[in-house]
Order: sequence, then C-alpha cells, then structure tokens
Amino acid sequence: MKRSTTQRRAPFPTLEPAEPPKQLSALETPTPVVDLDRLAHNLDRMASYCTLHGLALRPHVKTHKSPRIAADQIRLGAVGLTCATPRELEVMGDVSHDLLLAYPLVGAAKLARVMYIPHQVKLTVALDSSAALGQLAAASKVSQREVDVYVEVDLGMHRVGVQSPTDAVALAKQILQHPPLNYAGIAFYPGHVREHVKDQDANVERLRGDLGVYIAELDSAGVHPRVVSGGSTPTAWRMHEVPGVTEVRPGTYVYNDRTTAELGACGWEDCALTVLATVVSRAVPGQAVIDAGSKALGREPMRGVAGEGFGVVLDHPDVVVARMSEEHGILDLSTSDWNPQVGDQVRIIPNHVCVVVHLNDVIYGVRDSIVETSWVVAARGRTETEAAIES
Amino acid sequence: MKRSTTQRRAPFPTLEPAEPPKQLSALETPTPVVDLDRLAHNLDRMASYCTLHGLALRPHVKTHKSPRIAADQIRLGAVGLTCATPRELEVMGDVSHDLLLAYPLVGAAKLARVMYIPHQVKLTVALDSSAALGQLAAASKVSQREVDVYVEVDLGMHRVGVQSPTDAVALAKQILQHPPLNYAGIAFYPGHVREHVKDQDANVERLRGDLGVYIAELDSAGVHPRVVSGGSTPTAWRMHEVPGVTEVRPGTYVYNDRTTAELGACGWEDCALTVLATVVSRAVPGQAVIDAGSKALGREPMRGVAGEGFGVVLDHPDVVVARMSEEHGILDLSTSDWNPQVGDQVRIIPNHVCVVVHLNDVIYGVRDSIVETSWVVAARGRTETEAAIES
Repeated sequence: MKRSTTQRRAPFPTLEPAEPPKQLSALETPTPVVDLDRLAHNLDRMASYCTLHGLALRPHVKTHKSPRIAADQIRLGAVGLTCATPRELEVMGDVSHDLLLAYPLVGAAKLARVMYIPHQVKLTVALDSSAALGQLAAASKVSQREVDVYVEVDLGMHRVGVQSPTDAVALAKQILQHPPLNYAGIAFYPGHVREHVKDQDANVERLRGDLGVYIAELDSAGVHPRVVSGGSTPTAWRMHEVPGVTEVRPGTYVYNDRTTAELGACGWEDCALTVLATVVSRAVPGQAVIDAGSKALGREPMRGVAGEGFGVVLDHPDVVVARMSEEHGILDLSTSDWNPQVGDQVRIIPNHVCVVVHLNDVIYGVRDSIVETSWVVAARGRTETEAAIES
Repeated sequence: MKRSTTQRRAPFPTLEPAEPPKQLSALETPTPVVDLDRLAHNLDRMASYCTLHGLALRPHVKTHKSPRIAADQIRLGAVGLTCATPRELEVMGDVSHDLLLAYPLVGAAKLARVMYIPHQVKLTVALDSSAALGQLAAASKVSQREVDVYVEVDLGMHRVGVQSPTDAVALAKQILQHPPLNYAGIAFYPGHVREHVKDQDANVERLRGDLGVYIAELDSAGVHPRVVSGGSTPTAWRMHEVPGVTEVRPGTYVYNDRTTAELGACGWEDCALTVLATVVSRAVPGQAVIDAGSKALGREPMRGVAGEGFGVVLDHPDVVVARMSEEHGILDLSTSDWNPQVGDQVRIIPNHVCVVVHLNDVIYGVRDSIVETSWVVAARGRTETEAAIES
C-alpha cells in the first residue's frame, strides 16, 4: 500500500528546534510508542475507504482517547466522534460538536454530567430499554437539551441491544413521545463478526439479512432510521456490502494491534503502537523478563483468532509474552535463537491496543528511532482527579 | 475476628461538616469504593501479626498506590515501604524515608530518575544480575548515593532471581566491590505458594528447606544476609514459620480480593474494595450488563484457586462477571433468582484488586451506604503527565 506523507506533518508538529531529537533508547520503559507514519497511513486509509463508499465515518475515540488524534480524524473527514464514557465526551467536545455516546446512559450522576456537556455539542445516545429512555427523557427535559437517540439492536453480539424488530419499532415510537429527544436511527455493533476477514462472508451475508429485516419493519411502521450506524475495525472494510448502513464507528484502526493483524484486517506493517520495554532479568533459563506486565500491556487474550500469550515481539514474531505479573512480562525464548541481554530494549505489539492506551497517560510519537513528539491520553480515566472530594 | 475501631478515624478524616454525607447511590459508576472499617481492620491485622512475630513489615504499595494508606501503614509500625516503579518511589518518598524498589533497576532513564529521589530517603534495590549491578554501581557512584542492595533469589516462582546459592554468594561478593553500594541481604517472592492456605504446608516446608540452604551458604561464605525479605499476602501469615525471614512485603492485604478470599487468606468480610457499577441493559435474556468492563475491573483470572469469571457480586456470590468488553461486564444470571433492573447499582469484588486500583484515579471511602471521603491514587501511572514533552 502506498503511504500518504503529505499530510502527516500538520497534525504532529515536531518539537521546537531548540529541543534535539531524542533517541528511542533514551526513553524510560515501559511506555507506548507510536510510529507516526503508520498512524498517518491508518488514518488516511479508513478516511479514504469511507469517502469512496459514501459512509459517514464517526470513529470511536476509546482507542486513542486523545483530542490530537481526534482532530486529525475530523480533519480527514469524520462527521463526528463516538465515545463510551462521560470523560471521553467532555474531552472530545473541544474537538467536535457532533458526539455519539454509544453506550446506555443510565444513572443520575452520569446523566447530570453528560447534560453539562456544552449545548453547542450535538449529542446522540444509543440505548436499548424503556428504562434508559425514561431516565434520558427526564434529564433532557429538565436541561432543555435536544438529544438524538439511536435504538441499539442486537445483530448477534448478544451484549446489548433490543432482541427483535418489533421491540425496535416499539422503542423508536416511545422516543418520538419524548421531545426534546429525537429518534435518529439505529445502531449495532458487529463485534461478533471477528472471524478472519477471509472467512467473514457468511457472517456478512447474515448481517445483510438481519439488518434488512430491521430496516424494513421500521420503515413499514413509519419510523424510518435516518442513520444506520455500525462497524468495528475488523468489519468496517465490509460495511459497504451491507445495504442500509450509513455510518461506521471503527476505533482500533488508528493503531491496530496483534488481533487486528492476525485477523487479516490490517498488515503487521500497519501496527502503529508498540510497548517499548527493557529486559530486566535473564536469570531463569529459557526466558527473558521485561518490565512490561499486566499493568502496561493488559491481560487481553486474542479474540476470534488463535494466538498464545499477551503480545508479540516486534522483529521477533516467534517470541510472545507468555506470562505476566503486574510489572513483569515473561518472554518465552524456548523456541527462538534470539538471545536478548539485560538492558536491551524490545518493542511489543499488544493483543488489544485499546486497553494498553487506557493503562497509560502519555504516548510518544516516533519515526524510526527518533522520538519526535508526545501527547497526553487526555480522556483516559473517569474524571479529572482534581474534581474528587480530596480531604 | 474482633475489629479495631479506635484508630480508624485519624487516618480517614471525614468531610468538612458543611459537606453533607453523600449516599453511595449518588456516585457515578463505575468506581472503586472502599469500606473504611474493613480497611482499618486489614491494616491492623497485618501490623499485629508482624509485631507479634517480630517480623519487619515493609508493605508493598502497588496495591493502593496511595500516600494516605501508606502513612497509615507506617503509623501502625511498618519499617518502610516496598515499591515496584519509580513513580511509586517518588510519591512514597513523602511518606517514608526507607524505600525498597523490589524490582531490577535497569536502563539509563529509570536509573537517573531513581537517583533523583531525595537523598534523605534510604534506598534499597533488589537485583539478580551482574548487568543490573553494574548499571546501579555506576549510577550510585556518579550521584554519590549509598544504596542498599538485596540479592534476589528464586525459590520456585521462576520469574526473577538467581538460580543457586553459589550464584547468590557470587553476586553478594560483587556488591561488596562497589561502594557506595551496600550488600544488605536477600529477597525472595513466594508468589508460587498460592495454594489454599490449608494446603500450603508442603510448600512452606520446602521454602524452609530451600531458604535454609541459601542462608547457610551465604553465612559460610562470609556474606551473611542481614535482611531476609519475603512474603506475599497469601503466604505472609506463614512467614513466622520460616526460620531466617526478617521482613515481609505483603501488598494485597489492605484491600484483599476474590482470589485472596477463595485462597482462605482472608474472609469475604475482609474484602474492603468493591467496584460500584450500574446495570445498563437487561435486553439479552439470562444476563445483566453492567458498566464495569475490562477497563474498570481488569481481565484478571483467578490464580491458584478455581473460579470462573472476573469478579463476583457482593451479596449475590452465585453471580459472576462472566464476560467483559472494554466498558461492558456481563453478569450471568442463568443460575440465579436475582433479577436486577436497569439502573440498579451492584458492587463487584474483583479477582485481583491491585489491577483495579491501577485502572482508577480516585477511590471513595464508605461506611455502610455513606460516602465519607475520597483519595487520589497518586502513584498510579508512570509519570506526572505534566512532565511529558507536550508539543
């Protein structure tokens, strides 16, 4: 794939000239590092796909939690952003005035907080129950705030979502009875369609059928879904084959990870984020211990595709992080000729990058072995710690 | 067990009188909440055990990462604190001037940062290689800083640690050649001795034997270990039965968790930290979805003891968090009569509390259903985000 280089400088200004470039080897470990060229390429690729197929791109910020990358996504044509938490909404309100909370908004504290998002931000919320609708209707009425609502439908993930077109119609009609709420459409999350992209055909076919039934029943009941929102990263590339889909919400594509690569939804050369770690012990035969454990890598298994361990070593794909403690990662060297020494740095491609980002406050941007920039994971966590009742 | 209540108010001042007590139900979820009475009891119990048996208590702060709880530990008699990261050292230097980094200190950036810890703090580092020793020796010489060193020995965990008494003797003698480093003793981590406390007898017996050999060989080689440091939470209560042990480093005991309870190393009534969550969907039959997923609970399995899922519901111990996404936890209700509704709050006892704390910035302290206080997880993360090269 040809890589776009023309646009990459604007969103990632390099350090002030007075600050000399820092070598990767000078960074304290463990820390996530992002290859800036790969990131720029990933952003371009998804934006281009969506433009080509006329799909609205509303990327999920859960993967990067960074206003800087979100601003890039908007600049490249995203119609708005998808969030999962109030914190993500608060941070991303500075970047986009069109935010979707793709999560049932339940609970007085959370509702109150979300209603405080500045009113120039157009809010959309996805939900799947009368109970959640009732809470949202009351809050929006009190705060005199229009909120668009998607009915969440379950197309096979069995996590959230109404269970039938009949239920979807009923909930859509309920929404219409609660101005200032607006019924805007439906949302689904095809996270269960994780099989290797080459084997997805049957699942995509089933999705076409199931979604078609929902849309037809909603249409005939007079509650046409203006927006049909779906698409995780592995499935996003197939969404132009699913009639009716108007919007996709991929998150992982900005960085990608071992799962995405093994699924075939990206190449290994598209994995933009690695965890830089240092070998701290070789005392036990057959293994090397690195300073990235579950508190740096997350204890995430591979999903929808085979793969042992919790991450793979960049440049040594035969070596995985076989075991972890909180701050120790154990590289299994039993089947490798590689012989890393105490003090050597290694880079790990994690199984699930969204969890790695959530574990870290700062990300470094690199090109080759030069650290060009860094950014804060501003929407990590639940709240600004200053806001707590510190006694 | 009788609970101490006399000391609990000093370390946890309640809110200013002007601030009315807040109900637990008013908290935004997901959030960790700590039962203050249980916490006080747990702190007392370990301190009393160590006092009774003449063991120096050097608690590991990785579990709470909070200077406030560390100050309590010191007040109750801890000789100092154990840390795993430079950030933990930096934060805890305000609380204690006797800190152990129970982790190989490798890499120029990390060494430089640790050498900047104020010199009034007595630093001890555990290590298991000549390479790590060489780096530490060079750094301590440059910064003219005395550092005590423990030789880390592997007594069966097979994670880090020299592999034989001969290697321990050799490394101890190397330390002696590198003033201002001081050889102070040995450290081991009996994390592999996780079996149910009733079944630990054989493991404790083996530990007595193995440790005895190490101490004897070190003694006869003229490198007597002044300190013999060991003891995780599940095994701490047996350390008085292991001759030679002078110091224990339990961490988890402050909060305990499902694993600790299932192991029998604490009672269920000693689990001080739960994750407060809200039911956000009941759409899919047989399950309830809560707003605590892997980004709030951590995807930690049970260790050394059977147990499905990622946490158990307080008051409904037959219900576990069976599956998770990043922000969704799926409660399996298939074998329960409990019928929670959208909007209901639940409290989850997590499998592994240390990882939960690391995922959160703020902890709320509660008594019954009243929120009395909160504190920041100040040593969470790797660095103050302000310190990053923000462009």
